[in-house]
Amino acid sequence: MLLRMSSLFLRTLREDPADAEVPGHRLLVRAGYVRRAAPGIYSWLPLGYRVYQNVERIVREEMDAAGFQEVHFPALLPREPYEATNRWTEYGDNLFRLKDRRGNDMLLGPTHEEMFTLLVKDLYSSYKDLPVALYQIQTKYRDEARPRAGLLRGREFVMKDSYSFDVDDAGLDASYQKHREAYIKTFSRLGLDFEIVSATSGAMGGSRSEEFLHPTEIGEDTFVRCTTGHYSANAEAVVTPVPSSIPLEGLPEAHIEDTPDTPTIESLVAAANAMFPGRSFTAADTLKNVVVTLVHPTGEREPLIIGVPGDREVDTKRLEASVAPAEIEPFEAADFAKHPGLVKGYIGPQVLGDGSETGIRYLLDPRVAEGTAWITGANQPGKHVFDLVAGRDFTADGTIEAANVVEGDDCPVCASEGGDGKLTLARGLEIGHIFQLGRKYAEALGLKVLDQNGKLVTVTMGSYGIGVSRALAAIAEASWDEKGLCWPREVAPADVHLVAQGKATKDAAVFEAAEKLALELEAAGVRVLFDDRGKVSPGIKFKDADLIGVPSILVVGQKLADGVIEFTDRRSGSTETLPVGEAVKHVVAAIGA
Amino acid sequence: MLLRMSSLFLRTLREDPADAEVPGHRLLVRAGYVRRAAPGIYSWLPLGYRVYQNVERIVREEMDAAGFQEVHFPALLPREPYEATNRWTEYGDNLFRLKDRRGNDMLLGPTHEEMFTLLVKDLYSSYKDLPVALYQIQTKYRDEARPRAGLLRGREFVMKDSYSFDVDDAGLDASYQKHREAYIKTFSRLGLDFEIVSATSGAMGGSRSEEFLHPTEIGEDTFVRCTTGHYSANAEAVVTPVPSSIPLEGLPEAHIEDTPDTPTIESLVAAANAMFPGRSFTAADTLKNVVVTLVHPTGEREPLIIGVPGDREVDTKRLEASVAPAEIEPFEAADFAKHPGLVKGYIGPQVLGDGSETGIRYLLDPRVAEGTAWITGANQPGKHVFDLVAGRDFTADGTIEAANVVEGDDCPVCASEGGDGKLTLARGLEIGHIFQLGRKYAEALGLKVLDQNGKLVTVTMGSYGIGVSRALAAIAEASWDEKGLCWPREVAPADVHLVAQGKATKDAAVFEAAEKLALELEAAGVRVLFDDRGKVSPGIKFKDADLIGVPSILVVGQKLADGVIEFTDRRSGSTETLPVGEAVKHVVAAIGA
Repeated sequence: MLLRMSSLFLRTLREDPADAEVPGHRLLVRAGYVRRAAPGIYSWLPLGYRVYQNVERIVREEMDAAGFQEVHFPALLPREPYEATNRWTEYGDNLFRLKDRRGNDMLLGPTHEEMFTLLVKDLYSSYKDLPVALYQIQTKYRDEARPRAGLLRGREFVMKDSYSFDVDDAGLDASYQKHREAYIKTFSRLGLDFEIVSATSGAMGGSRSEEFLHPTEIGEDTFVRCTTGHYSANAEAVVTPVPSSIPLEGLPEAHIEDTPDTPTIESLVAAANAMFPGRSFTAADTLKNVVVTLVHPTGEREPLIIGVPGDREVDTKRLEASVAPAEIEPFEAADFAKHPGLVKGYIGPQVLGDGSETGIRYLLDPRVAEGTAWITGANQPGKHVFDLVAGRDFTADGTIEAANVVEGDDCPVCASEGGDGKLTLARGLEIGHIFQLGRKYAEALGLKVLDQNGKLVTVTMGSYGIGVSRALAAIAEASWDEKGLCWPREVAPADVHLVAQGKATKDAAVFEAAEKLALELEAAGVRVLFDDRGKVSPGIKFKDADLIGVPSILVVGQKLADGVIEFTDRRSGSTETLPVGEAVKHVVAAIGA
Repeated sequence: MLLRMSSLFLRTLREDPADAEVPGHRLLVRAGYVRRAAPGIYSWLPLGYRVYQNVERIVREEMDAAGFQEVHFPALLPREPYEATNRWTEYGDNLFRLKDRRGNDMLLGPTHEEMFTLLVKDLYSSYKDLPVALYQIQTKYRDEARPRAGLLRGREFVMKDSYSFDVDDAGLDASYQKHREAYIKTFSRLGLDFEIVSATSGAMGGSRSEEFLHPTEIGEDTFVRCTTGHYSANAEAVVTPVPSSIPLEGLPEAHIEDTPDTPTIESLVAAANAMFPGRSFTAADTLKNVVVTLVHPTGEREPLIIGVPGDREVDTKRLEASVAPAEIEPFEAADFAKHPGLVKGYIGPQVLGDGSETGIRYLLDPRVAEGTAWITGANQPGKHVFDLVAGRDFTADGTIEAANVVEGDDCPVCASEGGDGKLTLARGLEIGHIFQLGRKYAEALGLKVLDQNGKLVTVTMGSYGIGVSRALAAIAEASWDEKGLCWPREVAPADVHLVAQGKATKDAAVFEAAEKLALELEAAGVRVLFDDRGKVSPGIKFKDADLIGVPSILVVGQKLADGVIEFTDRRSGSTETLPVGEAVKHVVAAIGA
């Protein structure tokens, strides 16, 4: 079907839409690909849905090629399976819950581990049936607290989710590897740069887990790479190398000092250096105690204090990954009022932790190793304590990975192997995620098979996701210039944007030749977007072609009188003239149709 | 990708599933196409999803061929647009409603008139932009009171819904006609018998409306055909021919009689004939007053009494169509207690209607024309009134189409034209529906365009639906025999079911030849389901092939020694032998691949 601009349901916008935060999304709206229907919820217009279908097709073809089998689950699901795995509660506010007319609890599926587990349990019963890998491409729902950046973080979105089922760990490793390879092929074909980084498994449980991140400044994930190139990880997954303990014997006694007017770490360090001229304190010698409120999935609220060296910040995403499925909220003035033991601005570890005066849970950054000495709050206004030694003067309820990762930090892998690699930081967008779930879901839902010895064993699972609508958005973010979008050919809504220049009434020969060419190209298997609008100025047609971003632009115009037309590469802008008679052959060869 | 039974995620069942009410659905479950996930909610297994994708593809191709443009809306929608058209309320319990984390009301879209209207309003502003026809193939939600028959009436299902937008009525007629033609092509290609019948527009508003019904005993719709062949309609849409009025003058006076022991119409008629030997009463001379409770979308409950001749029943579906969007519930003993004016079993019209003793709304079957005389309740226990004349002794608040339609009833079209066609009845399954919505939605949501004179005019719309998952189910119901399913080729999960007979270890040559043939067929564009299971008996393989219902079955077995294989047509059972060397050529020709 020839796509004609004269009837295409499309209106390009000259102005940037108010609600678009990132450049690719702005262009998707301006060029008439998508339209916002509600916060975090989008409608696809004809051009957009074509691109979407191309992305979906590529994903499907690669999953089929890997031997994974397509199924399709409902999005509207009963509560019970999610109750069995505790995710009904754990998902907290991110889950869309509803009741049907009989009052039964239901949910909109955010991901389908439970349903796949039950389906395999329903059909399979022997090790001979395994391995099996199933997938679906399906609409998912998450009630994001902060929908953002258009399709990048929506509340209704399309995911390809796969699940592997194996009888043992070696099988899971092999299934995981197969998915890893299929993902590499998929993202390569989508024309998306990616980096495979180690990941925490977050709320999903399980062990080995990697993310496919598309490196981009607008990414919401920070990831690290070791200067040696042997390690890369999501910042949330970075494990802090633990310094060696220092023998406690002979360390100076702790002493409380007046430290008026030291509201910041910087002023505290200056005061300390002024007070003890022989010593040279830095922010790294101070211990900052940060209070937050943990909100458990049950709704229970718990204060939590985290101790980090003063040269670090608490990184919310790293903290959230460490405390998941609990969420973090600020600890407000009203909360302080309920805990008079906490002296705001002067909190010290002596009154914290299980069995202490306040009884508030206290977790330390791993750098606060036994024997390290700190300047920290003295739990009295205007006073700090110096030379407070971890393991001698205070202890905590454990350690936590919550401090921010900083460019130049030691690489944890190198550190454990005696190397000296340093971390560099970059931002990326999660476009894929592969997990070794292990037996968590199979155990909760009773998925067992008979093994070779006739013994019932619990199946081990993997879970693998690609954000299909998000991948499209990522491609858009990676494919634009100041004039508009520049789609990679395989996902583009058409191969060629054919412009008939001039007015239909005045330039009938041009329009006739263009129409003929359009039909010939279609017959040759070229997907054509034909700008056959009879009353629109060439300037607007060219602007629209640039904005829409089809990879090749053909112009039939004045030069038709000389028997030639123009063929432009949208991305590079390079133009060549083609004899009309050879246009089809040339275009077919150029685009590899 | 060659589909191999050895690894296909499939378990056929020997037993009928407990939850399957209709034969096609029973076979879809037994043959491993679908699986129930919750009441009215199904999961597609690999074979089923292949068939589903074929049906979806055919629908999409026909919509594209008709020039309709595909878009895609979210399923999770904000309340406001549905509030503007009053459907947020009108849908009653059929709508899945939920709240997001901020407390905003949302819904799962049952149909998308509002969203399409707003989208066109968003992009278009002139008569020059019209007509336009848009469609989507999308998951829809309706919280059915009685999900039934598997995919036929589910709570989550896939629909193709189209909407046309025109500047005037003639345009709407043309758009309607285009959809009608596209639907005829679509259902023909799907191999589904259908009848196009006049329909009420139900809760949708608007005027002209037709349903595509697939005639089948398990259909939930009753439809009529006139013996002349010039009229067919959904029973809900049949309009009762109104008899001529009879002059009131000279009609006998009404008289109350004791009628003990007449609990049924039959016993009442017998008593009447015994009482007045000169007259010959039938059930059609009695007037039955049926009390129901109307439940309005707002939740308000209202008693309603419907008067129908005693030889008719109140047909719930016709009644519901007449009172929509209100719903019907029984009028219980407790309700009678609240209305002492109603004498159960002896209700007569004298105390009914606006301004009467009871004040209860009273609607009459159109057959109760002015001047007709009736035996009906006397509003006293054990007594009926005779010769009660409509228009003289009682009136009603209006008429209602609620009485059942009966084989042999006069055709309303013939009746109005002086002909004598009679109605015959049949059952059908609604697989498509086309509506002339008119301006209802455009008015409610302010969709106006400038006409040729620069005047703002309200756009007129059509709405057109095909139940995609339901069409698949209808095909299954139409395509089976005692051995299993018999798919039409274009929707079948494969073209050929290739069976390697014997055991892989003992019959290596057979398996080798079958494997080679499978690959050659695939290379020739034939979709193959290859039963390569090495340890499964031929009996089970043949049973599975019959159950799964791929249109052609190829068997490579003992006859391979003679250089031939067997080619069977699943539906007719006819078998021919083919020389191995010619198999590919023959199969390709036979199936038209």
